Amino acid sequence: MNNSTSAPTISFASDNWAGAHPEVLEAIAAANAGHAPAYGGDPWTARFQRLARTLFGDDAEAFPVLSGTGANVLALQAALPRWGAVICAGTAHIHTDETGAPEKTGGLKLLPVEAPGGKLTPELVAREAWGWGNEHRAEPLAVSITQSTELGTCYTPDEIRALADQAHEHGMVLHLDGSRLGNAAASLGVSLGELTSGAGVDLLSLGGTKNGLLGAEAVVVLRPGSAPGLPYLRKMNLQLASKMRFVSAQLLALYEGDLWVRSASHANAMAARLATGLEELATAGAVPGLRIAHPVEVNSVFATLPADVADRVRSRFAFGAWPTDPGLYRLMCAFDTQPEHVDALLAAIAEG
Amino acid sequence: MNNSTSAPTISFASDNWAGAHPEVLEAIAAANAGHAPAYGGDPWTARFQRLARTLFGDDAEAFPVLSGTGANVLALQAALPRWGAVICAGTAHIHTDETGAPEKTGGLKLLPVEAPGGKLTPELVAREAWGWGNEHRAEPLAVSITQSTELGTCYTPDEIRALADQAHEHGMVLHLDGSRLGNAAASLGVSLGELTSGAGVDLLSLGGTKNGLLGAEAVVVLRPGSAPGLPYLRKMNLQLASKMRFVSAQLLALYEGDLWVRSASHANAMAARLATGLEELATAGAVPGLRIAHPVEVNSVFATLPADVADRVRSRFAFGAWPTDPGLYRLMCAFDTQPEHVDALLAAIAEG
Amino acid sequence: MNNSTSAPTISFASDNWAGAHPEVLEAIAAANAGHAPAYGGDPWTARFQRLARTLFGDDAEAFPVLSGTGANVLALQAALPRWGAVICAGTAHIHTDETGAPEKTGGLKLLPVEAPGGKLTPELVAREAWGWGNEHRAEPLAVSITQSTELGTCYTPDEIRALADQAHEHGMVLHLDGSRLGNAAASLGVSLGELTSGAGVDLLSLGGTKNGLLGAEAVVVLRPGSAPGLPYLRKMNLQLASKMRFVSAQLLALYEGDLWVRSASHANAMAARLATGLEELATAGAVPGLRIAHPVEVNSVFATLPADVADRVRSRFAFGAWPTDPGLYRLMCAFDTQPEHVDALLAAIAEG
Amino acid sequence: MNNSTSAPTISFASDNWAGAHPEVLEAIAAANAGHAPAYGGDPWTARFQRLARTLFGDDAEAFPVLSGTGANVLALQAALPRWGAVICAGTAHIHTDETGAPEKTGGLKLLPVEAPGGKLTPELVAREAWGWGNEHRAEPLAVSITQSTELGTCYTPDEIRALADQAHEHGMVLHLDGSRLGNAAASLGVSLGELTSGAGVDLLSLGGTKNGLLGAEAVVVLRPGSAPGLPYLRKMNLQLASKMRFVSAQLLALYEGDLWVRSASHANAMAARLATGLEELATAGAVPGLRIAHPVEVNSVFATLPADVADRVRSRFAFGAWPTDPGLYRLMCAFDTQPEHVDALLAAIAEG
Repeated sequence: MNNSTSAPTISFASDNWAGAHPEVLEAIAAANAGHAPAYGGDPWTARFQRLARTLFGDDAEAFPVLSGTGANVLALQAALPRWGAVICAGTAHIHTDETGAPEKTGGLKLLPVEAPGGKLTPELVAREAWGWGNEHRAEPLAVSITQSTELGTCYTPDEIRALADQAHEHGMVLHLDGSRLGNAAASLGVSLGELTSGAGVDLLSLGGTKNGLLGAEAVVVLRPGSAPGLPYLRKMNLQLASKMRFVSAQLLALYEGDLWVRSASHANAMAARLATGLEELATAGAVPGLRIAHPVEVNSVFATLPADVADRVRSRFAFGAWPTDPGLYRLMCAFDTQPEHVDALLAAIAEG
Repeated sequence: MNNSTSAPTISFASDNWAGAHPEVLEAIAAANAGHAPAYGGDPWTARFQRLARTLFGDDAEAFPVLSGTGANVLALQAALPRWGAVICAGTAHIHTDETGAPEKTGGLKLLPVEAPGGKLTPELVAREAWGWGNEHRAEPLAVSITQSTELGTCYTPDEIRALADQAHEHGMVLHLDGSRLGNAAASLGVSLGELTSGAGVDLLSLGGTKNGLLGAEAVVVLRPGSAPGLPYLRKMNLQLASKMRFVSAQLLALYEGDLWVRSASHANAMAARLATGLEELATAGAVPGLRIAHPVEVNSVFATLPADVADRVRSRFAFGAWPTDPGLYRLMCAFDTQPEHVDALLAAIAEG
Repeated sequence: MNNSTSAPTISFASDNWAGAHPEVLEAIAAANAGHAPAYGGDPWTARFQRLARTLFGDDAEAFPVLSGTGANVLALQAALPRWGAVICAGTAHIHTDETGAPEKTGGLKLLPVEAPGGKLTPELVAREAWGWGNEHRAEPLAVSITQSTELGTCYTPDEIRALADQAHEHGMVLHLDGSRLGNAAASLGVSLGELTSGAGVDLLSLGGTKNGLLGAEAVVVLRPGSAPGLPYLRKMNLQLASKMRFVSAQLLALYEGDLWVRSASHANAMAARLATGLEELATAGAVPGLRIAHPVEVNSVFATLPADVADRVRSRFAFGAWPTDPGLYRLMCAFDTQPEHVDALLAAIAEG
Repeated sequence: MNNSTSAPTISFASDNWAGAHPEVLEAIAAANAGHAPAYGGDPWTARFQRLARTLFGDDAEAFPVLSGTGANVLALQAALPRWGAVICAGTAHIHTDETGAPEKTGGLKLLPVEAPGGKLTPELVAREAWGWGNEHRAEPLAVSITQSTELGTCYTPDEIRALADQAHEHGMVLHLDGSRLGNAAASLGVSLGELTSGAGVDLLSLGGTKNGLLGAEAVVVLRPGSAPGLPYLRKMNLQLASKMRFVSAQLLALYEGDLWVRSASHANAMAARLATGLEELATAGAVPGLRIAHPVEVNSVFATLPADVADRVRSRFAFGAWPTDPGLYRLMCAFDTQPEHVDALLAAIAEG
């Protein structure tokens, strides 16, 4: 999505246009207490490690990092030998939005598969899940899914389990890019663990920034031994915070209590309100060409709009055109999106 | 330096064991105002860009990043073609403390040169500054220096200028790892610009975290054109913050006013106090084997101590053994080190 | 394709199961005359450079290398900045048969597009040719096509020209993987230049080994300036032969006279004979399920066969199952395939 | 060493300026017999594998490759995790003559140590052999030595054993770059096995090209399990020959009989003859400034010469200036250097 220096004050561009939740700033301030060992030797990081075990099971091992792309590259690089490949959806963030970092920085090969709605299935994975032991082929040793997907859809725990079973049968790991894991869990009404370790996920990129943190993510290794050397690789991949307590304190603020589910549920509800309004406009024929393009399951709404309508509305409300589909736009809600923001956007669209 | 989960409350381990300066937290809170474009399209980042021009000259272009190692790898990778090499001191952080990230993540070759006191000179650089145009040799196309150095010494502006002239004469860029640039400038009584753009530096890793930020650094391109593709490479190297305003706001808090020089001067003064005290102990023969090993020019003191004394003192005050020199220890002060902390440490050492 | 240590004496497995043409061995022997400068400073390499200009135009610059994958990785890496991506067919050798070397060794990102018959078109390229200047997307800066394709089809000069025009319009380079360029040129009845420089190709991987050399390929830069630093990158990519005269002498033996077209035409003719025979068997209903799957334009025939028939025949004649299409087999002829070999294979298939 | 297109007919530039031994060409011709499985599935490669076990012990596994730099990068990459580092001499070919391929292509970090005469000792290795388990330091997990060294000296089996013991004690592998292993073995009067597997070497880059082959090297894994994934990595590193039989046939020609020792002994003897002649000239004071700089133990002579003498002689006899030592030259003999060549060179030098 394009940057701009004069942002409209109300934005549906992305959940990372939102700021930080006040409780997060409070947690950071509370962590600012004297000296603490650098690089993760601090009490906050230890507490986050304990929390990870509570959330994801006794085998979980958590590694706070600095960026979501960083979490993905680190998790996958740690899981794969140098000759490994990753099966992913053609719409996957790791394929479309990370400037080739998985390949160029991580040394990974991606095997993208066209996936309707952004969701892999065992049948789709099977298109690239072959050829192990062939020295001419980068070995497919990981499957990576995004939850919620880049198109705003969700995998159910059963769907994830089916992918995990297939992956494990072939000696592959299942990685889950959970930059919006909270939104999916809130939408499905399940716990974070049920969607990950409980469904067979081996490696998790646990999001934070898109759900109200300043800037904090984590790699969580759910299956012991699936990511050897991760501490080295975290530093090597420029993801080791020196004052890590401030990263861990953010993650604690989000996940220790219910902030994650409160914020995600709210953002999801705002998207649902927006979707309902758009459906009504579409049904009423108020805006010819308006159509909701993907199921609205989390905090984003994908809608087609006439170009002139979109341009007019975007002069007041920032949101992005979807690059691969002319006429398609993504409208995204955040923890701080208010009903009146949604209603104002709907009114602007209704004006045509 | 080793991590530890039970840190002594008073620490001389590193300036990154300190927390964040209160003014920095205030600046973050102030930046938490509604939505703002992600990835640097926000007003804080624009303001930091303007500040960089004020500090470093009208040609400066600033790129906030997430880690100091990230800044170094990014700056050097952007400056060099794929076949380039970097001449550095054997003690350089990029050679000794970055898990090979410059090579492994950046794809760079390092040409380390043994450098007394951690400082390169034109004579030392000349040992590796040869062989351009030879397809068998990675071309030496950058010289990287650290200011202040890993051994707590400083380059004067004239010393930097001499290295810059030599570099430019041979078509090389001069990179300065300024994770403690403020400490050097405060020590030398010169401006940040005089130590960098004013002395011929082409590329700067501008530190922040070690001088009281939560976590924020920047690459500053001082010579236009010396780092093509940097925006792509920043994302590719996992250094692009989505909510960049919070990174830029920290840098503004540090560098827009005089916080950087206040904090650095204080840390330097604490180290000087510590050095004076140690000299007195040494002169008095109070601790046999105690010796200050390198000139104390910024906020660190390198001292030799008998192992038993060191062990005893380290049980109360965290500080690190220097890995390459048995018996050598680094004692580092931070913006929040207090005179009574220094005096308590001196007393503990005096007890032997 | 799988290796095996007990090869049938007659093989349709690949044109690299064939040996070297006798004229090639003679050329190597003739080049074995006393001392000559290493690494390409020899007269044979200079002569090959002159030949490249005769074949491909006065701007051509040739770099002999050691392997076909090496040529591809080197050409594409030299053409692209670190943040570049390559649009290719999903069937491209660089995507399916090079163990991820383009990504892992070359640091490239691939953007594969599903391409019927293995051939890209401007419409297919357009699916990924967008998003320049967006720091989140690896910039599509090259299109790579294979001639003849991995499925045995050919691009006409006009088809290549259309791809070149599109590429150049967007500031992309057009790379041609010509490991079987001679087969395509022979099939189309055009010169090597007409298929490459004459059609707008910027960078060529010029094949040799598959057309009767011991082991020699070349990168040919057709548009000056499109591959900066190639000499460094050749060494860095482990493709610089020390006794390069023996590589260049092979390339001279193939391309200085008409050996390339004699050998390629012969191999093509043998494939045509095989295809004709298979068509007759199919028409006669002699082998249920037998079908030719792709147009037979060069020296390979793709045919579907019942598994039991295939297994029986493969016990006497080596050839490979196509990994992505169950029931599909590739039958490949070489410069030394004889009509009686083809007829014997047809007889074996006819037996069912 | 520089390339040049008009080579003097008699050369002391490098042993890779020599051509191929006639027996090698005969072996290649003999291997040119019909079809054979590609990529190493051929009988010659199987035979070379058996030969490797004869030479290096029953655990040896051999992987023919295309270049010496390729062998080094492949061996070391296969032996190390992504965060590994290699301790080597500052004069090591992998540090000085491979365009950074170990770092840039192999993703390795080098820890060069200044080593008199080009030879590491346990004391020198110890300078960098520390810091395992520290996430900030690339783990030193390999020691790489060159035999014979870049300065023409040899390690005795006992010296190698001491380095191997030290390496193994710390969980490191010992790699030997044996591009001139034959010259060392011939000089020391020991077998290839005594210098490698017998002395504790884990991984060997077995040379060939510099001892009379067209172009063939091999990685030999001496300790099982020390190089996982090597088949994948060989392809990924662009070192997998499709018509590998011609690479293996060369290695067989050299190592199956006594060609390697005949050729190496001859080249060594020519260097000894040259050294003796130079010593006589030096003793006689015939050429002021002439001095032999390193012990002459194999086929190279390092001598200092006045610049004007060197220039005059080099107009007739190619040889190279040593880049790091002004006034130092390397004179190298090959399998085909004749006594009269040596004597002519001596005469030219004597003329001053």
